[in-house]
Formats: sequence, C-alpha cells, structure tokens
Amino acid sequence: MIRFLSQIQRINNFCYSNVIVSNRVVGFSTSGTMFKSAVFNLQEASKDQVQEFLNSFDTVLTDCDGVLWIDNNAISGSADAMNYFRKLGKKIFYVTNNSTKIRSEFASKATQLGFIASQEEILSTAYLVAHYLKGIGFTKKVYLLGSNGIGEELKAVGVRHIGVGPDHVKPDFKSMQPSELDPEVGAVVVGFDEHVSYPKFMKAASYLASEQCLFIATNTDERFPKAGSIVVPGTGTLVRAVETCSERKALVLGKPHNYVRKYLESCGLNPARTLMIGDRCNTDIELGVRCGFQTLLVLSGVTSPKDLEKLRNEKTPPLPDVVLPKLGDLLSLVS
Amino acid sequence: MIRFLSQIQRINNFCYSNVIVSNRVVGFSTSGTMFKSAVFNLQEASKDQVQEFLNSFDTVLTDCDGVLWIDNNAISGSADAMNYFRKLGKKIFYVTNNSTKIRSEFASKATQLGFIASQEEILSTAYLVAHYLKGIGFTKKVYLLGSNGIGEELKAVGVRHIGVGPDHVKPDFKSMQPSELDPEVGAVVVGFDEHVSYPKFMKAASYLASEQCLFIATNTDERFPKAGSIVVPGTGTLVRAVETCSERKALVLGKPHNYVRKYLESCGLNPARTLMIGDRCNTDIELGVRCGFQTLLVLSGVTSPKDLEKLRNEKTPPLPDVVLPKLGDLLSLVS
Repeated sequence: MIRFLSQIQRINNFCYSNVIVSNRVVGFSTSGTMFKSAVFNLQEASKDQVQEFLNSFDTVLTDCDGVLWIDNNAISGSADAMNYFRKLGKKIFYVTNNSTKIRSEFASKATQLGFIASQEEILSTAYLVAHYLKGIGFTKKVYLLGSNGIGEELKAVGVRHIGVGPDHVKPDFKSMQPSELDPEVGAVVVGFDEHVSYPKFMKAASYLASEQCLFIATNTDERFPKAGSIVVPGTGTLVRAVETCSERKALVLGKPHNYVRKYLESCGLNPARTLMIGDRCNTDIELGVRCGFQTLLVLSGVTSPKDLEKLRNEKTPPLPDVVLPKLGDLLSLVS
Repeated sequence: MIRFLSQIQRINNFCYSNVIVSNRVVGFSTSGTMFKSAVFNLQEASKDQVQEFLNSFDTVLTDCDGVLWIDNNAISGSADAMNYFRKLGKKIFYVTNNSTKIRSEFASKATQLGFIASQEEILSTAYLVAHYLKGIGFTKKVYLLGSNGIGEELKAVGVRHIGVGPDHVKPDFKSMQPSELDPEVGAVVVGFDEHVSYPKFMKAASYLASEQCLFIATNTDERFPKAGSIVVPGTGTLVRAVETCSERKALVLGKPHNYVRKYLESCGLNPARTLMIGDRCNTDIELGVRCGFQTLLVLSGVTSPKDLEKLRNEKTPPLPDVVLPKLGDLLSLVS
C-alpha cells in the first residue's frame, strides 16, 4: 500500500509540476496523464489528442448509474463506447456504489443493456461489505438497514444478517424494549433501503450504542442520477440520518474511500495507465484523483452542465481531467 | 434586536472580565450572573449562595423532555421545583423543541404531571413554525414531514398542509411522476415524524429542488432523552437526511437558533434576570449562552454524568453556569 501511495504521489507531483512549468491548462505528460485537472471538453481535442488519450490507459474503471444507464435504460452510446474500449484491449471494471444488487445481477443487467460484462468485472458496494467483513473474520450478526443485494452477498460469505424489508412503526414505538434487540448483532450496515423507517433508525442507533458494534456504510451518495424533476435520495441520506442519531461516524467502503482503493490496488492495476469514468465529482472523480488515475466526467448523470460551469469557474477540487456530455460521444471523436 | 444584542454583549464582557480578574472559577457579579460557565455543582454551594442564586433571576425558561419529564413520567421533584419558582414570583416559560403536540396539549400534559402551566407559557416548535409562516405572510401549502402537532398549529393560523401520516413505499417507487407533487406547495417543514419513509424523503427533496420552496426545520436534536438502553432518534436525524438529499440547509427555528431568541425577545424578558434550564448543551445551554441568560444543566436527560465529566475536563463551550443531577434536587438545598 505504501509503495502504491508513493507511486501515486510521484505521479501527482510530476503532473502538477508539468502544468505549472508549461503554464498551459492543457498539458501532456510522459506518464500518460493528459489534460490534468483541466476540466477539458474532449470534444474540443484534435484527432491526434483523442488518439493519444485513448493510448494513455490500459484499464477503464467506470461508474454505472448515470454513466452507463439510468434506472433500467441504457444511456445512448454508452454500451458501444465500453465495448469499443474492450475491442482496443482495455481491461474493464464496473465500479458502482449501488448496493441493491449482487454482482451477478449487475452483470446480467449490463449484458441485457448491451454491455459485455462478467461477474468478475463488477465491483459493487454490496460485495465490498461482504468482502470487508469476511476479511476481518467477523462472526457475529449484521443488522442491515439495506436491501437484499447486501443480504445475498453476506450470505455468500457466511455472514448472518437481520433487518431487510419493511419494519413499520407500532403505535407504542417509544416503548421498544432492549429485549427486541438481537444480542448477537455485532455490526450495523447501512446501504440503500427503500423501506427505511423510524423503527429501523431506532434499532440501528440502539445497536450502535455499544462501542463494540461496528458501523459500516456502503456509500454516501446524496442522490441517484435520474431523468426528470423527481429527486431520488441516495444512500447518503440514510447514512447521515443514522450517523446523527447514533452520534457516530460510519466506516464508508465505497467510492471515494480507502477500502475500494485498497481493493483496486489488490487487482494489480497500474494507476498511471488507468482511466476512471464517472458522473459525480465527490465519489468517482475524487477516487480517481486520490488514486492517481486519469478521470473523465460525463454529464449524463448527477452533474449538470450548470454544475460543470461552476466547476470550471471555481476550480474547486476534485476536478476531472476531461469532460464529455455523455460517454457515447467518444465514438464520434474516433470515427 | 440590536439593543438587545449589545446588552447581552455588555453582560458577557462584564462576566468574562470578572472571572479573569478574580482568577477564581466561581465568581459573583453585580449583574446577578453567578458561577459564569463554571459547570458548578449547585449542591456544593452554601445556603447563602443558593439564596443569592435564587434571587438573581425573575424569569425561568425550562426545557421539558429530560428536565421535567421523560415520555409520560414526571422526573421526581421537577414539578415541586417549578411550582416553587412560581411561588417565589418567577415568570415561567416552557420552551421545548418537541414538535409533536400543540400548546394546549403540552399545558394539559404538564398539568396532569403536577406542574402549574397555561397555554400562554408554552413555547413549542410546532407553534414557532406556524408563528413564522404567519409572520412572513405565507399563503401557499406546506409539505409536512412531521406530525399532527405542527399540522394543528398551522391550521390555527390558516396555513394549509399535506403529508402527515404513513406514506409507504410502492413497488415501483422510482417511477414517481412530477404529477404526484402538489404544485401549490411552497414550503417543506421537517419536524418529528414517526412515519418517516423513503417516499417522504423523495417528495421533500423534489419540492426543495425549486429554489423558491422554503425549507424549515423545527429543531436538530439528535436524540430524545430516554430511560434505558433504547436510543430514540430525534428530529435532527430526519433534518440531516432531508438536508442531504435536497442538498440544501434548513432554516431551524427551535433552540438554540435565532428565531426562538427573537421570539423570547418579543416577550420582553430581561436577559440578565433570566435562568435557562435544560438537559442538552447544544440546544438549551447554547441558547442561554447566546442570549446572555444564566444556565442550569440537569443530568436527568440526554447529558450523562460521564458527559459532564468530559465537559468539565475539556472546557468546550457552551458550558453551563451550574449543574444539578436533577431539577428536583434544588428543593433540598433551600429547605
């Protein structure tokens, strides 16, 4: 890990110097990191620059919701772009903070929507939770404020769990007794839960009153990307709620936090030759920046063109290297 | 307001100087503010000091949950202590962040538990919400993620509302359409809501996507005081959740925020002759400190003896002037 980090540090230092010395927003570097934090619209690049960009990475990590699809609809051109990367020989990982499905379900969904994908290429937060608990030799039970996606991944590694599904408020909810708590619970896991309720908050906070009880969250995304004017609250909404009533901070496993970085490190990828694609700056791009990956922000998800304008003006990190309205737009640049 | 604030400033400056000059933790001041931020256990005061303390204020503001009662049980001795204040001629206000009842219901509950109380002496956050919206001439509809207490107070001032009661998730909740939102809604109010649910978060965040929509919260208390090991999440849990998915900050009306200060100011009380009693430092004591009141922390609610020890050691403001295990302990000091 230390070697990995110092490698990232060297890359960052190099690119930073490069930008300063050249005093140009768009710079090339021998490490293959073009357009460093330039929020550069790839559509404005020359054919040669696009080609050099494509040659500068061997591995593509991509977010799913908002980049590849929204709900159950593929975003136009995304599948063709991903399959083009594969045709060019790039290694591919689908890295999603979504915790509602198991890896094989993500692979099926991707395949149905036209993406070539195998279970081994999926890195989801439901899987990360199971991987983490298995890794620390956890033998107690999980109180899961989350969905069956996490439940199934936990089951696959032999970790027991309770809590999935509706838990409606009782008329005398304030009279809940300690006897209603399961003494075997040793961890509270918060993921996306459409059945979130007051009794669930009450139980989570009560388990967490014990300092020995672990507190794990899949991710803290504020919202899901969504077409239209309805806002779809993300897991961060539930994590912040449980953090408030438990008066504790969760260990967050998903993007952009350390655990997913560590996992990617174990996959043996070379940060200097990796591209991270996402629709969120505070998760996808932040992860990319922390790991020393090149980063591509697409505007087909949570980040709007208005947000992008703000990004460009305020220059507040994390800034993506390059930007595209949607991933599929890459194809017209190489055709 | 400016005069009121500068008055508070003068009092604070005076007391601060007094403590520094005397170089004693316990100091007396001519403004009647004894034991300033001393976290002084009143049980260790002499009879004369207790008498001087009692003579130093004309008005008593008291929190309810955790000071006077827990759930539906009076805390031993609290009613006698409050009624003793009244017998001494003190003006009394019950100032609660609890938003679940209307003022007359609080007065009834207090009376049933042995406290002398009238509706006019109750200052609750449900009432403050109605008072605020009436004050700004609000004519649209409120989406209320809260209970009927707020609903009734709104009705009393002619403000329409929707949203109270269960709103369970539908199997296809992600397909919620803008047509399901009420175009007349011009404010989202978040209070305590035992029926909180994912569709409620979704609706609140969708209304708040319009910048014109007001965002009001009753209070941000993390927990209710509760006997036993079950943690009862407070309104802050729900407010932080809605703030996360709406990506906005609520205007909080309850303790320790400006609106309740302003309301108290309009009641014509003299800060230098007012005592604030509470069981929470970040609401009750903070309000007292901001307003220049004397403050009494009791340990019968959310603040534990362990928390108090931490307070004393860390000297992190807001610090109460005096402390008692419970309000009723005052009586044995004067008998």
